[in-house]
Amino acid sequence: MYVGKKIKRVDAFDKVTGRAKFTEDLVPKDAYTAKIYHSTIAHGKVLSIDTKEAMKVPGVVKIVTCFDVPKIQFPTAGHPWSTEKDHQDVADRLLLNEHVRYYGDDVAVVIARDEVACKQALKKIVVEYEEYPANFDALDSIKDVKVPIHEESPDNILKHTTNNRGDFEEAIKEEGLIKVVGDYETPIISHAHLENPDVYAYEKSGKIVVVASTQIPHIIRRVVGQALGLGWGKIRVIKPYIGGGFGNKQDALYEPLCAFLTTQVGGHPVKLLPSREETFVSTRTRHAMKIHIESYVRKNGDYVARRVETYSNGGAYASHGHSIAAKGLNCFHQLYPCENIKGDAYSIYTNLPAGGAMRGYGIPQAMFAYEAHHDDVAKALGMDPLELKLRNVMPKGYVDPFSHNENYYDSFRDCLEKGAEAIDYYAKKEKYKNQTGNIRYGIGCAVYWYNTGVFPISLESSSCRMIVNEDGSVQIQLPETEIGQGADTAFTQMAADSLGMRIEDIHIISTQDTDVSPFGLGAYASRQTYMASFSITKTAKELKEKILDQAYLQTRITPNNLDIVDSTIVRKTDGRKLLTMEELATESLYTLKTENQHITAETTHTIRTNAFSFGASFAEVKVDIDLAKVEVVKLINVHDAGNIINPQLAEAQAHGGMSMAVGYALTEEMKYNDKGRILNNNLLDYKLGTIADTPEFEVYFIENPEPTSPYHTKSLGEPPTCSPAPAIRNAVLNATGISVNKIPMTPHVLFPLFKENGLIDNDL
Amino acid sequence: MYVGKKIKRVDAFDKVTGRAKFTEDLVPKDAYTAKIYHSTIAHGKVLSIDTKEAMKVPGVVKIVTCFDVPKIQFPTAGHPWSTEKDHQDVADRLLLNEHVRYYGDDVAVVIARDEVACKQALKKIVVEYEEYPANFDALDSIKDVKVPIHEESPDNILKHTTNNRGDFEEAIKEEGLIKVVGDYETPIISHAHLENPDVYAYEKSGKIVVVASTQIPHIIRRVVGQALGLGWGKIRVIKPYIGGGFGNKQDALYEPLCAFLTTQVGGHPVKLLPSREETFVSTRTRHAMKIHIESYVRKNGDYVARRVETYSNGGAYASHGHSIAAKGLNCFHQLYPCENIKGDAYSIYTNLPAGGAMRGYGIPQAMFAYEAHHDDVAKALGMDPLELKLRNVMPKGYVDPFSHNENYYDSFRDCLEKGAEAIDYYAKKEKYKNQTGNIRYGIGCAVYWYNTGVFPISLESSSCRMIVNEDGSVQIQLPETEIGQGADTAFTQMAADSLGMRIEDIHIISTQDTDVSPFGLGAYASRQTYMASFSITKTAKELKEKILDQAYLQTRITPNNLDIVDSTIVRKTDGRKLLTMEELATESLYTLKTENQHITAETTHTIRTNAFSFGASFAEVKVDIDLAKVEVVKLINVHDAGNIINPQLAEAQAHGGMSMAVGYALTEEMKYNDKGRILNNNLLDYKLGTIADTPEFEVYFIENPEPTSPYHTKSLGEPPTCSPAPAIRNAVLNATGISVNKIPMTPHVLFPLFKENGLIDNDL
Repeated sequence: MYVGKKIKRVDAFDKVTGRAKFTEDLVPKDAYTAKIYHSTIAHGKVLSIDTKEAMKVPGVVKIVTCFDVPKIQFPTAGHPWSTEKDHQDVADRLLLNEHVRYYGDDVAVVIARDEVACKQALKKIVVEYEEYPANFDALDSIKDVKVPIHEESPDNILKHTTNNRGDFEEAIKEEGLIKVVGDYETPIISHAHLENPDVYAYEKSGKIVVVASTQIPHIIRRVVGQALGLGWGKIRVIKPYIGGGFGNKQDALYEPLCAFLTTQVGGHPVKLLPSREETFVSTRTRHAMKIHIESYVRKNGDYVARRVETYSNGGAYASHGHSIAAKGLNCFHQLYPCENIKGDAYSIYTNLPAGGAMRGYGIPQAMFAYEAHHDDVAKALGMDPLELKLRNVMPKGYVDPFSHNENYYDSFRDCLEKGAEAIDYYAKKEKYKNQTGNIRYGIGCAVYWYNTGVFPISLESSSCRMIVNEDGSVQIQLPETEIGQGADTAFTQMAADSLGMRIEDIHIISTQDTDVSPFGLGAYASRQTYMASFSITKTAKELKEKILDQAYLQTRITPNNLDIVDSTIVRKTDGRKLLTMEELATESLYTLKTENQHITAETTHTIRTNAFSFGASFAEVKVDIDLAKVEVVKLINVHDAGNIINPQLAEAQAHGGMSMAVGYALTEEMKYNDKGRILNNNLLDYKLGTIADTPEFEVYFIENPEPTSPYHTKSLGEPPTCSPAPAIRNAVLNATGISVNKIPMTPHVLFPLFKENGLIDNDL
Repeated sequence: MYVGKKIKRVDAFDKVTGRAKFTEDLVPKDAYTAKIYHSTIAHGKVLSIDTKEAMKVPGVVKIVTCFDVPKIQFPTAGHPWSTEKDHQDVADRLLLNEHVRYYGDDVAVVIARDEVACKQALKKIVVEYEEYPANFDALDSIKDVKVPIHEESPDNILKHTTNNRGDFEEAIKEEGLIKVVGDYETPIISHAHLENPDVYAYEKSGKIVVVASTQIPHIIRRVVGQALGLGWGKIRVIKPYIGGGFGNKQDALYEPLCAFLTTQVGGHPVKLLPSREETFVSTRTRHAMKIHIESYVRKNGDYVARRVETYSNGGAYASHGHSIAAKGLNCFHQLYPCENIKGDAYSIYTNLPAGGAMRGYGIPQAMFAYEAHHDDVAKALGMDPLELKLRNVMPKGYVDPFSHNENYYDSFRDCLEKGAEAIDYYAKKEKYKNQTGNIRYGIGCAVYWYNTGVFPISLESSSCRMIVNEDGSVQIQLPETEIGQGADTAFTQMAADSLGMRIEDIHIISTQDTDVSPFGLGAYASRQTYMASFSITKTAKELKEKILDQAYLQTRITPNNLDIVDSTIVRKTDGRKLLTMEELATESLYTLKTENQHITAETTHTIRTNAFSFGASFAEVKVDIDLAKVEVVKLINVHDAGNIINPQLAEAQAHGGMSMAVGYALTEEMKYNDKGRILNNNLLDYKLGTIADTPEFEVYFIENPEPTSPYHTKSLGEPPTCSPAPAIRNAVLNATGISVNKIPMTPHVLFPLFKENGLIDNDL
């Protein structure tokens, strides 16, 4: 059995040796280069574009402007499509825009023989605008709207939902309640994946072929078809290895535009390789949110009534629409079940780059606010926050009425107790009780909850194809994508176990090609290991049945008495090895005696479940009061992701998420000037953590077997990013006594707070 | 219905616009170049190779010699593999050879960063040989063998088979028989396909990936695995568009060597692009044959007894082994059934380039001899050759006892009568009866017979996969290969009709990739349209059933009352259009109401039939006696290939074959000096016909529906090359009264004959 073992990544050798090919490596030699002319105002209308001088630059092939593109509005979110109009994503995009909505919006494209010609021509394009008022803050944007960012949303509110439970107004009348109020704020950040979202496209065999660094090839196929007004079968999307996505590539970025460009130059290959600067501004970001929370609590710690109000800054385009803010809102009710809740969430258009999916999908923002607020409540009650958590957090047996997800175990308690033990919580709390002086230590914790996939809101399905090769080895094809996380290795382990094959006899096809890959949805919502486990086991069952039927022809033993063990057909009754898979396959393909057979199987599994994934973070921090600087000394994540398919990869997955979360807590933030122009669109000015900023990480897994999935596994991709930031914030509270309600907790934020609270001399 | 119509080639646009990519177009930018050091003697042993100076050439990466390769003998013939040892091809190859067997044999390889470095290094390699006696003629080669070309064949006879019927010795005792004897000779020629057999290879994901201009990707996978001693599943072969093959690429050429080379440089891409000169010498040729025939005939034209003896010059390696000579031999018995036949065929190793498969697979050689001889018999009898043919040629109802192929119609008569009418045979014969003078015209005809595929000698099977796209269009994947002949278009037509789809909704995947393409055998034996018609119809049936089951869920109409017409689901009872394939597919993939489904089907069909294909050629020639020069004025081919899938492509197929056959008859021949070194290894010196040499072609199809195959079709790929050469030769006989028994009928051949027979003054 391979599941549960530390199996080496199947792509390790190719990645270490540089053999693994990424989109840019594959661009045809003769491809044209395309470069985008971006808007230099945050809001307005393009009146005219003068391309005369630009066209004279030697090497320029064509310039396409916002006046040339199809007037078809299309959605970009990487969600499963729905045949019901209500469930479809917001279609608010054009390929290029006359109505520009943020500084960096796409106005025109130069196609040239090389990058130098592109850049020279870009400089010679003259665009005349009519400028409109611009707003960058969510709350400002919905006040007194002069020119709506999108006609369809005259108040700049993309969507507002409420989620109420019980009777909040009535409940707060109870006497003796303690009211705790907080306003929490999270920044816009960038995914900062290693590989920019490269894409190139060309026409071939009557199709537009798009090779893209994407998490979601089949969805890109659909969106490109929609954007260009073509049958989706006329689009072919190929996804090679990709260098990270973190949700940014769970969106149609420049794939539709690039597909359109090749049609403008007779199907010649066109590459569109965004620079790092463009990737920062003109792809997607994590939504900034402002979250207001009120809690009415009894002295014993019972939550009686709660209010949450979220304002999500969606930027200039809907992208994933309201679902990110809604996910955060709906989580509020489940994490600390309370009978009376009043909840609102607003997704608001502003004149900033579009917010989209990013690892955690609204939960990192929500968790920062909810778990920061939780410690503020504990502080108000004079209770230990961990004790308050254990009293209120989602109990064993909790069933969500909408998703029917169930907390089958006492997972939160398991995680919290494990984390507390690992960090020595109570001893440290005691130790750090009465600190004075400039350097102070603190300890904090936070929990998170996460779903596995998008059911029942959207479709969840996965397909799989398996092929027996001439030598008895097996090829697996899946629509689910390796994006650096190690998915292919987990799939290979599950396939080997499901079939009874040696792992070296399983060949996974990493590249998705919508022409030949089974249909499916790709990498998002931490869904893949869970979803693919269904299609892998279903397909393996069918393939194995065909293999054993074939073995029957060759061995005369009933298939019921046959099994596959270590790539060998064995007789169950005595375990005797009857023939190798190689012997079986060769005979099956080449026999002249019976019908010969190319043994394959392909199935789709519709998944009608979802699963809660749980966990907690524990942080220990060191605060330098005078420098207003926080250092994370140790960060521990504890996850219940069900059974772990590959402990080594799972740990790596967690480390990556924790590292991103430390940046979220302390340093990362996209900054704009008063024109909406980004100030730090590069990896020097944008403060991504380096190895020097990385604290000691510890990861523990509580392997409560998830009963709904074949290998008892559930989501782990996004979860590690969800709880570290509030744990760090709560540790700062523990160290300093100060509630910091805004991240990143940079010196710029901390210094005024420390001064205000008397930790720093007011004269400084 | 699309079958039977002149549908535009599916690859026409891509090929005309240059979008279609061939192997060389796809070579990665950083690939190393490999160039082969070829033997400069015709027979001997490499004693030593000094590479010291060569290694000093800047850019040289590695030199691999015959001393470095695995000592695994492997077969190269593009035949289906057999699990029975007796049916396996002759394994007489190594990747590089110490025992060199022809001038041009492969001794060593330089791998360098570019071609210039390769060529410089090649010049600095010093090879020391021990030389052995060499033989270039088949009959010489088996006399007094000093050093056998292969140890396994001490007499240089690869194989000798007999095929006797009745009692020849007894039958010839009949009184009054006329004995006609002839010795016929055909040359070694080159396939001269447009694209050389390019290949490159690299390692990826634990596999060796070989991209090759081949007709037979799955077979290449097997042969590379065998040659390198690796599991066949560890090899991945990709076949892009290819520029012709004509059987040369129905052989493993440099794919195994190139696959080995990449393993020698750490999996880095290595390209091996043979030059035209190398393609002439170091790939494969058409076997030269010497055929001795004796016929004992009654005065009325009855064949009483016949003797045929074939000596096939196989060159230095077995390649397709004895099957080509054997096919020619076995055809003898069927073409003109005769009760007493004594037949022998010998395949002989010589020190010339290896003979292999070439369009017609032994039949062009056999037909030249058999049909030339037939006219010699007619001449001896004083009968019109066409009358003699009609009297003796395979009659309606003839069943071959081995293959069980049946002549279901009076196809030969149909073809001969159609051709005679088209060329105005009897009138022309009359007109050209008593010619004198320098310019003389003549008319001649010849028939051929051809099989469709390799059953029952070998496995015949084909697989197919079909995928319903999101827009209801359908992808088809086949293992059968487009090699320029238009196969993809014929497959698309059959798929559209089998499914009830509009042809524009069928997307055929032209590239074969053994990782994802269904298993199958590829282009040879004129098998593809016939074989694929089985797997296409079988898979379409399964797919359609799944589609109609899905339609039932959406329409509530029983699948039995549903059909697909023009890509629309219709109710059979009233023909009402219920929903489009697009609506069906979208709902099927995205529904949340029922199990959603990725609709695909994949099946294998084992084909246990074969089919005779028939035809005839009629040629009219103009002979310039003094110049000893023959010009073909008109050439007519009549084919019974069953029902024609695409008349336009079928006619083009015939034109191509006729053009090759005119070259075979008149100009083409590979020439060697007395050291076995080729004299005309390029397209200037090797006299391939140009458009200026091309006579007027006419093609007629007798569409007798073949009962064994779903679309009533049978072979047409190779047949057009089979009968023109003897028809031309017989027209020359008609014009001059001289039997020319050797092709090509160049002035060098004709001049002495004309002199000998008094047509040219003996003093000249």
